[in-house]
Amino acid sequence: MTKKIDLNCDMGEGFGVWQMGDDFSLLDHIDSTNIACGWHAGDPERMKNLVAAAIQKNVFIGAHPSLPDLIGFGRREMAITPNDAYNYVMYQAGALKAFIDSMNGNLHHVKPHGALYNQAAKDIELAKAIALAVKDLGGDVILYGLAGSCYVEAANAVGVQLWQEVFADRRYTSQGYLVPRSEVGALIEDEGEAAQQAVRMASSNEVLSIDQKLVKLQADTLCIHGDGPSALDFARKIRSLL
Amino acid sequence: MTKKIDLNCDMGEGFGVWQMGDDFSLLDHIDSTNIACGWHAGDPERMKNLVAAAIQKNVFIGAHPSLPDLIGFGRREMAITPNDAYNYVMYQAGALKAFIDSMNGNLHHVKPHGALYNQAAKDIELAKAIALAVKDLGGDVILYGLAGSCYVEAANAVGVQLWQEVFADRRYTSQGYLVPRSEVGALIEDEGEAAQQAVRMASSNEVLSIDQKLVKLQADTLCIHGDGPSALDFARKIRSLL
Amino acid sequence: MTKKIDLNCDMGEGFGVWQMGDDFSLLDHIDSTNIACGWHAGDPERMKNLVAAAIQKNVFIGAHPSLPDLIGFGRREMAITPNDAYNYVMYQAGALKAFIDSMNGNLHHVKPHGALYNQAAKDIELAKAIALAVKDLGGDVILYGLAGSCYVEAANAVGVQLWQEVFADRRYTSQGYLVPRSEVGALIEDEGEAAQQAVRMASSNEVLSIDQKLVKLQADTLCIHGDGPSALDFARKIRSLL
Amino acid sequence: MTKKIDLNCDMGEGFGVWQMGDDFSLLDHIDSTNIACGWHAGDPERMKNLVAAAIQKNVFIGAHPSLPDLIGFGRREMAITPNDAYNYVMYQAGALKAFIDSMNGNLHHVKPHGALYNQAAKDIELAKAIALAVKDLGGDVILYGLAGSCYVEAANAVGVQLWQEVFADRRYTSQGYLVPRSEVGALIEDEGEAAQQAVRMASSNEVLSIDQKLVKLQADTLCIHGDGPSALDFARKIRSLL
Repeated sequence: MTKKIDLNCDMGEGFGVWQMGDDFSLLDHIDSTNIACGWHAGDPERMKNLVAAAIQKNVFIGAHPSLPDLIGFGRREMAITPNDAYNYVMYQAGALKAFIDSMNGNLHHVKPHGALYNQAAKDIELAKAIALAVKDLGGDVILYGLAGSCYVEAANAVGVQLWQEVFADRRYTSQGYLVPRSEVGALIEDEGEAAQQAVRMASSNEVLSIDQKLVKLQADTLCIHGDGPSALDFARKIRSLL
Repeated sequence: MTKKIDLNCDMGEGFGVWQMGDDFSLLDHIDSTNIACGWHAGDPERMKNLVAAAIQKNVFIGAHPSLPDLIGFGRREMAITPNDAYNYVMYQAGALKAFIDSMNGNLHHVKPHGALYNQAAKDIELAKAIALAVKDLGGDVILYGLAGSCYVEAANAVGVQLWQEVFADRRYTSQGYLVPRSEVGALIEDEGEAAQQAVRMASSNEVLSIDQKLVKLQADTLCIHGDGPSALDFARKIRSLL
Repeated sequence: MTKKIDLNCDMGEGFGVWQMGDDFSLLDHIDSTNIACGWHAGDPERMKNLVAAAIQKNVFIGAHPSLPDLIGFGRREMAITPNDAYNYVMYQAGALKAFIDSMNGNLHHVKPHGALYNQAAKDIELAKAIALAVKDLGGDVILYGLAGSCYVEAANAVGVQLWQEVFADRRYTSQGYLVPRSEVGALIEDEGEAAQQAVRMASSNEVLSIDQKLVKLQADTLCIHGDGPSALDFARKIRSLL
Repeated sequence: MTKKIDLNCDMGEGFGVWQMGDDFSLLDHIDSTNIACGWHAGDPERMKNLVAAAIQKNVFIGAHPSLPDLIGFGRREMAITPNDAYNYVMYQAGALKAFIDSMNGNLHHVKPHGALYNQAAKDIELAKAIALAVKDLGGDVILYGLAGSCYVEAANAVGVQLWQEVFADRRYTSQGYLVPRSEVGALIEDEGEAAQQAVRMASSNEVLSIDQKLVKLQADTLCIHGDGPSALDFARKIRSLL
């Protein structure tokens, strides 16, 4: 295995008094943090503190914007327009960028969250609007988007760098999409299996689909989840394997 | 009268389907626009459109951040900490700045809204936290704050430029504070009288208080309100007088 | 024309400082008011005041619950579950009912708003969940739902009374659905034509579709809009015609 | 000890994906649950599920309404009017009551949350407005309010039954008020000491203030907190002692 894959993790996904995951410990085991910006989770205090910690630990800082759906954690698809998608990414990434700039950090990437991420993966107009927002943020910000999805065409069309994202603990369809969370088998719950999938994707750019087909995927960045009880252990394990 | 006073106006204070004021027409008659950032009013679409129009019309663009109180239009004081105040200004001004930067515009100033504005005028720690946020936004952003209030000391302490703000249609106490909106006589409803007060403040840096005392005020920028039925006429009149 | 059709109007759709429509005047010209409950519009103060006025004017009081989407006025479809729909109707209608009960009024009906209304019209599971919530509110509350849609089957299945709703100023497809607002010709902008459609639906239970087909509809209640400049005139005209 | 004191606990204080405390287990060890209604915490799903569990376990069900401050967990004082306080209690308690009524349960009490609770304890007009809302909810709903505070006068004036509330793990001033959370020593962190204070209050209607004065308090209901790691153990211990 010669290729180095980026490890990313969604963070700052508490809100006010509610905490989610052990963000600060996880920063030691990943390359990129995607920080929630207040619309599905996250608040200014969390954003500020995570930015400070990420800068100190040399972790790439990304914005993790979402649909305006706090009660649903941004996981429910909404019939938004491409213009809405553009606006929502600009607003949320801009809010995060102010904290980053104030600490002389760098907004490295934008990774849409939840339903916004999934909708754009299937809808080229949404994907283009998001890519355009990323471009308009300036500074060569990178878009993180689902490998093999509409993000690829959108990033090309708009002229934005894309890091194609793969998931260790999610199963794929034979078309290369994620099996929706609402379906049985969507999540790989066995850590060993998830780690194995991660290694395979990172080393060979391929994954075995839920129906046992071999699917080609460009694996630039790998998402690991930060909110389970063993998130920290898993991050350590994946890191040592890759 | 040799001194030129800046005319500023709060704008973008609708939300979603709800409109407030004739923002685009008013842009022709003012020098500075303070754009609501979504917490007491305003939304990404309005922010984007106003920024575009203000750049085209060469109007100074400012952020108008507030307390998180949409249902109360940011007018109700809240027991926030200085750290909260810092965070809220950074978040909201950052969101607006993303739109401004994307159009190669310039974030010229920050003017806190409503209760946040008033609380900081009386509370040096809040005022300092806001001033620090303005400083941390970088780019020599100017703070607009109530003339003769805690904003003066805070701006000096933090090292931020302050434009002291006066109001055409609000009455003053003999200490130089605004008579609270909840009290009788807080608003000057006669346009002629408001215009007269504006001219006096702009030309002589003084105002006649509600109890008929002469109060000294440094009048760098004058706020005119954009949401009344005759806002446009009043803006035109003030502009021609000054 | 012997049948009396109920005239209903969505009201209380301002929020905080933002007003929409001349609710109180309209109350004199309608039979049923559908009061926004705070999720797409509306706030406790508006709810209370409208309830008081409606009781005084002997207008049927209904709850007008929506998806949690204030920034989008509840007009954007969201991928909610039937359980969500049930919960959202109960919560919002319950909030309104407290004000009604406190004035010895009666919660007469529930009419879902916007995207929630439209989604349920096409999705029997959502429609059943809403019908069940209406039933669980007790007191023989009536469901107002799109004529000829899933609401009919749902109300039958659950055992709730349904008043089938028709629209004066919306065009219909030949299947009896509303032409989506996003399509050309969705709205009938000529008042005479809208009035004519209203009379035809009320007297003959039929409508001419956008492609000039005659469509049968059971017209129990007719929605007139309260937010246009001539809403009041139109309400008066319709009332005099029917 | 002959008097039985009511044990109450704030519950349902998660929001969406975020959980707080082990609500369902705690229901076995208390008499009254105060259920968050969505404004500082809580959501319709949690409200519904807790109501169902409380009915099954024969626990008194109360509404726990708050200021509109989700990001601050309703803990920050806001300059609301008595009319606002009335409206907010009606709206939130009404929303909860719909779920209760649908399961043939009974809204037993209302206990304001956080800053709303504290503001009303010191402000007779706010306390009266809340008491009036409780009265207007009908059905002889009981108000839970701070022992010895403005709630006593307000409940008398309005004609609502009040259960005076005391706290096991909060220290008191010699005037019988709670030491604000922002001050050192506000919380009793030693469980033994908290239990001792609880027993003393329940048996003798008195408490030792932070400056070692004996203060008389009418202790009708005792609040225990549900969100600490040992909340369950503490509830069990208190229950066995009382």
